[in-house]
Amino acid sequence: MRSPNPETKTTTEPEDHVEHWDEVADVVVVGSGFAGLTAAIEAHNAGASVIILEKMKAPGGNSIISDGCIAAAATPMQQKAGIKDSAELMYSDMLKAGLGLNHPDLVREVVARSYEALQWSIDYLGVEYLDRVDQFGGHTVPRCLTALNVSGATIIRQQISKLRELGIEVRLQMCLKTFVRNADGRVCGVVVREGYDHEDSSGGTDRYIKATKAVVLATGGFGSDIAFRMAQDPRLTEKIDSTNKPFATAEAMVEALKIEANPVHLSHIQLGPWACPDERGYGVGPIFSEYIVFLYGIVVDAVNARRIANELADRKTLSDAILNTGQPCIALADSKAVEQSGWSIDSCLKKGVVKQFNQLDELASFYGLPPAALEATVEQHNTCVEGKLDRDFGRPIPPDASPMTHPPFFGMRLWPKVHHTMGGVQINVRAQVINLEGHPIRGLYAAGEVTGGVHGACRLGSCAITDCLVFGRIAGRNAAAERP
Amino acid sequence: MRSPNPETKTTTEPEDHVEHWDEVADVVVVGSGFAGLTAAIEAHNAGASVIILEKMKAPGGNSIISDGCIAAAATPMQQKAGIKDSAELMYSDMLKAGLGLNHPDLVREVVARSYEALQWSIDYLGVEYLDRVDQFGGHTVPRCLTALNVSGATIIRQQISKLRELGIEVRLQMCLKTFVRNADGRVCGVVVREGYDHEDSSGGTDRYIKATKAVVLATGGFGSDIAFRMAQDPRLTEKIDSTNKPFATAEAMVEALKIEANPVHLSHIQLGPWACPDERGYGVGPIFSEYIVFLYGIVVDAVNARRIANELADRKTLSDAILNTGQPCIALADSKAVEQSGWSIDSCLKKGVVKQFNQLDELASFYGLPPAALEATVEQHNTCVEGKLDRDFGRPIPPDASPMTHPPFFGMRLWPKVHHTMGGVQINVRAQVINLEGHPIRGLYAAGEVTGGVHGACRLGSCAITDCLVFGRIAGRNAAAERP
Repeated sequence: MRSPNPETKTTTEPEDHVEHWDEVADVVVVGSGFAGLTAAIEAHNAGASVIILEKMKAPGGNSIISDGCIAAAATPMQQKAGIKDSAELMYSDMLKAGLGLNHPDLVREVVARSYEALQWSIDYLGVEYLDRVDQFGGHTVPRCLTALNVSGATIIRQQISKLRELGIEVRLQMCLKTFVRNADGRVCGVVVREGYDHEDSSGGTDRYIKATKAVVLATGGFGSDIAFRMAQDPRLTEKIDSTNKPFATAEAMVEALKIEANPVHLSHIQLGPWACPDERGYGVGPIFSEYIVFLYGIVVDAVNARRIANELADRKTLSDAILNTGQPCIALADSKAVEQSGWSIDSCLKKGVVKQFNQLDELASFYGLPPAALEATVEQHNTCVEGKLDRDFGRPIPPDASPMTHPPFFGMRLWPKVHHTMGGVQINVRAQVINLEGHPIRGLYAAGEVTGGVHGACRLGSCAITDCLVFGRIAGRNAAAERP
Repeated sequence: MRSPNPETKTTTEPEDHVEHWDEVADVVVVGSGFAGLTAAIEAHNAGASVIILEKMKAPGGNSIISDGCIAAAATPMQQKAGIKDSAELMYSDMLKAGLGLNHPDLVREVVARSYEALQWSIDYLGVEYLDRVDQFGGHTVPRCLTALNVSGATIIRQQISKLRELGIEVRLQMCLKTFVRNADGRVCGVVVREGYDHEDSSGGTDRYIKATKAVVLATGGFGSDIAFRMAQDPRLTEKIDSTNKPFATAEAMVEALKIEANPVHLSHIQLGPWACPDERGYGVGPIFSEYIVFLYGIVVDAVNARRIANELADRKTLSDAILNTGQPCIALADSKAVEQSGWSIDSCLKKGVVKQFNQLDELASFYGLPPAALEATVEQHNTCVEGKLDRDFGRPIPPDASPMTHPPFFGMRLWPKVHHTMGGVQINVRAQVINLEGHPIRGLYAAGEVTGGVHGACRLGSCAITDCLVFGRIAGRNAAAERP
């Protein structure tokens, strides 16, 4: 699926071809995930009339299936937990994971405004977070807050109810077909397919919506667009699952490229190392792997039962390590680890992705691991935990970690899934889309996963929501302030 | 420098806007490096009339400053030297270096036709190669032939003289301004700036050239385009030198992106680890580092005098290892290594990039290395050579390698330079340019460094000329066979 209506050739539309505008608003926001809804709220609050377009039958995009974790640097929540952090430290963590490809000015903006965005989500949107600060792979210190119900839907619901208060409803089944530009090249509206049905893209009618100030593109990533992602990484065939919804496709970003937006980092496509091949999509397995095993447990090669990497390494490092073994690895932890994490794995057990065993050798036998080798690996891990030093892979040992000796033991298979597309259209710190010649495309802003540059070669977990809120706010305000 | 004339807005031109064609040919080739000249020869030999456009005052593009090395698999030259190789082995070497991002069908085409292209350059073009088969970093076996004078100019000269025989001259100072498409979207010509001057882009006049069959884009990479490369990798500021000529810029590729060519792997920009910061551009230093030190010598950290990596690792691995030390590393070898390599380093010594020392500690003192640490590193290296096993980094030890004990000793500073841009427009195995929707852009072919996909995340040394010759030939033949 790329074009909303394959019969109609989608080319960019000059304004003088538009005979009739069906509707007019100051700011037209395309996409209703974290970035789009944030931009819409801020554009409204800056005095603009706003229309939000969503191609699916429900709002929230892919954001509603995120785990609702947001990273912020040097927060009172960290202070309360005795964690020392700084904007500079978060900046350097993001650049390290991004292999230095991140656009430094964009990262600085995200990091500097991370706490402000988090606090805005609490104070203004009314989002509630769990009373804990978590550490994810690639972060030097714990700095991640998790929304209630461990779900991005918690944030989306608050955003939609706020928008309703402000008198704005998300328009559903409205799929961007093309941008309209005036004689000066300024984006001045969009053509959308109204009545769009993702299952059957033949229907619907064209609708012309004028944006007197600006359009904000917030249509997310292309993790589920198999043809588009395979041009950048041919390994990502239909045989590699994605944590994204099937509608996470490239067509809106492609329309921006057609009006000469500069594509940045498109070939950097992130796999989630915490995914379980025994369930579809994101699933529940990551609760066990990311929140428990990567901190307190171990990940072992399914053939030789040896650890393969620092389980807290960034996503690319760990995903590559798993893929290099040639088959799903086994993530394991004991009941003490589950207890210390504070998380419930009931949903994982109920779904059958995590299995419970009274003895380590039962676990070994179930997954076909050599039992003696597994025992040796666990013993070696226990030595690391007791000595507070991981001599093998340098993983930091949490202060409350215990040797893995407390039955029952839990196991889960791990195999990476496409999770995030780091690449997208280039933006500047004002969230203006930059063209192939290095100049802003007037009248066009973008925020969130549809943009490239913030995360470089590899995004750190929990930095996506921060990015969406920070640049969604910037895009919304600046779009409202445009002087056509 | 991006637009040949900054005052004129370069937008793509529909055919019905063209009032008058100044000239017509079946095939218009843009660029006169390895790929462009090859395409022109093959298009002519397939019966097409051909025009070749070159923006600079001399033909040959960046190819004339390449070292003229070409990789080919399973050649008689290898057989004669007792080297066992196969297309499959070269394919797997290229995919390993490319981190699996390479387009498999393109790599298979290059590898399968590598020997045929090499032999064509000998038999048809009359190129002479040195009677030796070399091994470069990332190749499992020696498979690289080097043109006489260690220079791509040797190949370019033969191509130009062949074209002259065929009655075709390269048109100089003709810079592509934009593509012209007809009402069906087919590329049917180009607008060029005639009398273009790279030093002063304000001059020249527009010339409209019609291509009745097709246009072949062969304009090379963008290694010297600081603004364009920084959008993909912000570390590559003007402070990082390039081995490319200053005219290796993005403007022609950008014109292809404007007509919706799919950009592939743009953010993968290769640094050459063999470059010396004490000379500009490619220079002569690589003769010492790549042909001598990486096989027989060692590369050490300037602070602790320890080896930093397998010196025969692929370019990305070795460049990153050097960059990570934070300052130029030191490459060193003894006179026996120079002798065994069969190469002369006179030009390196004359230019002063390689220095000669009677004792190792003189070398240490000159470069500020701790002498005892250097001695220990050399001793350890000698043990590896004697045991035919590099226990530290797994570099293969050549059968004729000797311990580093033969004065005089030679040293050179190493600091990576931008060398090759792996990314570019997507092509298929017919060398047709592929658009954002995954379909060929009719009337447009491309070959060489302006394309992306063959080399994935990292190109192996000596595979570029193979790529240019193989896909140049394919592009030329298919362009000539187009039925408009």
